[in-house]
Amino acid sequence: MRTRAAVAVAAGQPLVIMEVNLADPKEGEVLVEIKATGICHTDEFTLSGADPEGLFPAILGHEGAGVVIAVGPGVKSLKVGDHVIPLYTPECRECPSCLSRKTNLCTAIRSTQGQGLMPDGTSRFSMLDGTPIHHYMGCSTFANHTVVPEIALAKVRKDAPFDKICYIGCGVTTGIGAVLNTAKVEHDATAVVFGLGGIGLNVIQGLKMAGARMIIGVDLNNDKKAWGEKFGMTHFVNPKEIEGSVVQAIVDLTKTPFDKIGGADYSFDCTGNVKVMRDALECTHRGWGQSIIIGVAPAGAVIETRPFQLVTGRVWKGTAFGGARGRTDVPTIVDWYMDGKIEIDSLITHILPLEDINKGFDLMHSGTSIRSVVVF
Amino acid sequence: MRTRAAVAVAAGQPLVIMEVNLADPKEGEVLVEIKATGICHTDEFTLSGADPEGLFPAILGHEGAGVVIAVGPGVKSLKVGDHVIPLYTPECRECPSCLSRKTNLCTAIRSTQGQGLMPDGTSRFSMLDGTPIHHYMGCSTFANHTVVPEIALAKVRKDAPFDKICYIGCGVTTGIGAVLNTAKVEHDATAVVFGLGGIGLNVIQGLKMAGARMIIGVDLNNDKKAWGEKFGMTHFVNPKEIEGSVVQAIVDLTKTPFDKIGGADYSFDCTGNVKVMRDALECTHRGWGQSIIIGVAPAGAVIETRPFQLVTGRVWKGTAFGGARGRTDVPTIVDWYMDGKIEIDSLITHILPLEDINKGFDLMHSGTSIRSVVVF
Repeated sequence: MRTRAAVAVAAGQPLVIMEVNLADPKEGEVLVEIKATGICHTDEFTLSGADPEGLFPAILGHEGAGVVIAVGPGVKSLKVGDHVIPLYTPECRECPSCLSRKTNLCTAIRSTQGQGLMPDGTSRFSMLDGTPIHHYMGCSTFANHTVVPEIALAKVRKDAPFDKICYIGCGVTTGIGAVLNTAKVEHDATAVVFGLGGIGLNVIQGLKMAGARMIIGVDLNNDKKAWGEKFGMTHFVNPKEIEGSVVQAIVDLTKTPFDKIGGADYSFDCTGNVKVMRDALECTHRGWGQSIIIGVAPAGAVIETRPFQLVTGRVWKGTAFGGARGRTDVPTIVDWYMDGKIEIDSLITHILPLEDINKGFDLMHSGTSIRSVVVF
Repeated sequence: MRTRAAVAVAAGQPLVIMEVNLADPKEGEVLVEIKATGICHTDEFTLSGADPEGLFPAILGHEGAGVVIAVGPGVKSLKVGDHVIPLYTPECRECPSCLSRKTNLCTAIRSTQGQGLMPDGTSRFSMLDGTPIHHYMGCSTFANHTVVPEIALAKVRKDAPFDKICYIGCGVTTGIGAVLNTAKVEHDATAVVFGLGGIGLNVIQGLKMAGARMIIGVDLNNDKKAWGEKFGMTHFVNPKEIEGSVVQAIVDLTKTPFDKIGGADYSFDCTGNVKVMRDALECTHRGWGQSIIIGVAPAGAVIETRPFQLVTGRVWKGTAFGGARGRTDVPTIVDWYMDGKIEIDSLITHILPLEDINKGFDLMHSGTSIRSVVVF
């Protein structure tokens, strides 16, 4: 079949809207009609050429929602008409990682996914002249139709709006999951969130769900203060507007008459800046502070700290897809949204047709949008 | 009173055996007759001048055992004749850290201890000419008598030999505790221990207690292989004798027919070398590997890695005194020794009189000893 897609033809160039060929789903694969897709910083990271593993040409996009149009041989858990969210972190429930009960990082199709291919080592997408086009993160949601492995699709309820729940395919789950699955933040904890973009705001709403007592947001842009407060932030720090270091500011904020040492119980880096990651670790509490890295750093960048920070009880962790097991957890998060337990609507600041997808990237660059969503 | 001590008069100089003045214990303090004390790398670190917080003159030593000779006003939990092990990590059971149930890093007397003083801000030791001598880590066990705060003394059974259980005051508890308290290693886990000195061997015996399936020791000295095996090591890697990196060697060793990714479930750095600390993190398993820093790094040294290592599920931690709450846990570890559950005797390779204490440092430098113990 043919479908319409925004193709990343080369690094650093705008996406090109074009007709492309899409082959039938093979064994264990599913043809999905994408109804809506978010535009995420990770797409931008790859499109810019900064991603050392980026491949071109490719159909980017990994934050979508849609409907099953056809299933390949052997597909058992999905049928035509099911509503689905593609998962860049699949859940095969059979590999050592899935069976470990200790990680969400399923390895069943990791190597082919990293090569921009389906599990059999080939692509379903091609240009009209036959040139193969790479898949991206196993999803390629910047296309009206895509082929995705069965193990990389979460089946969700049919009454949920595609143009909202697509965001659960990455940003919402990453932010909330970092709090609930990775950090396991407990009631009455103190926490700091560095970077109040889409991920940071979702971390904040995760912290509110977890019952955190003090939720400190850190951002260089004062416009983010109102955004943070809307989602449950209790304190705001703009590092440009304080004297001294942001670490000291947070340590001071978290001191109490009983605890004169100070430091946050948890911190979350949502910036991708390795210097901020160090601050995020070092502002946590001696003895038990945990810092969670969510942001994606530039290629080759390293984090550093004195080992004394860890020897005195701080823990440095990271999270991918919020530690969520997609097929198991994503349907529940969709329920939370439909039940009004989490907020998504206001975070989707722009709705665009596919033709305007490059405008979505512009809005991200300028900091105008929290999330732009393309609807088909 | 007067007592005999090995005094660190200046950085980089041998200890000097001399008579010193020791004032009576004040409120909440206890006079202890030290019967035996180990010589630890941390003493050497300070004596060498490498410790930026080192103070001179001082009476070093923090791995002792002895008998209560007198108690100051207000001391309730100890009486004359009790056998005790001094604790460089006290346990007041009242401060925010002790009450957190999340750390052993009691803060009750942290600031004065760091200044080489008793909690009232003064020293009990002085030269015969009246010059004050600093306490060290709140213990100063390189003296035949010392004064220690009540909250920094673990009361232990009287039938335990001082010249063995003194080692529980630091090395034994640090190594075994890192496994049981900090990492919480579970049955059938795989683990790597970098550096097979006294701490590393105690980590190995902790891993054996925890039921680890594979215990890999890493050391540049092949003589350590037999030592490791004696304590439960199952595999040995000498980085000088393999092709390729030690990280890859460990990943390969831990692969199984089911798990083709490889990597250790847990790793422990007992070297203090920040490059080794990075290897220790990166050889752990994607998704759930935990690396615990035990070694003390040189002043100013930093650890580094790519954040991707954490985002893909590895956790970087540290431990001090093995995460043990001294007054609560040390008596139990003494019981383990007396019940034959842990091995100490063979680790104490040299017994010396106080006059020969500098020989103990020489034995450490040359790698001849595992642990030298000074007996009074």
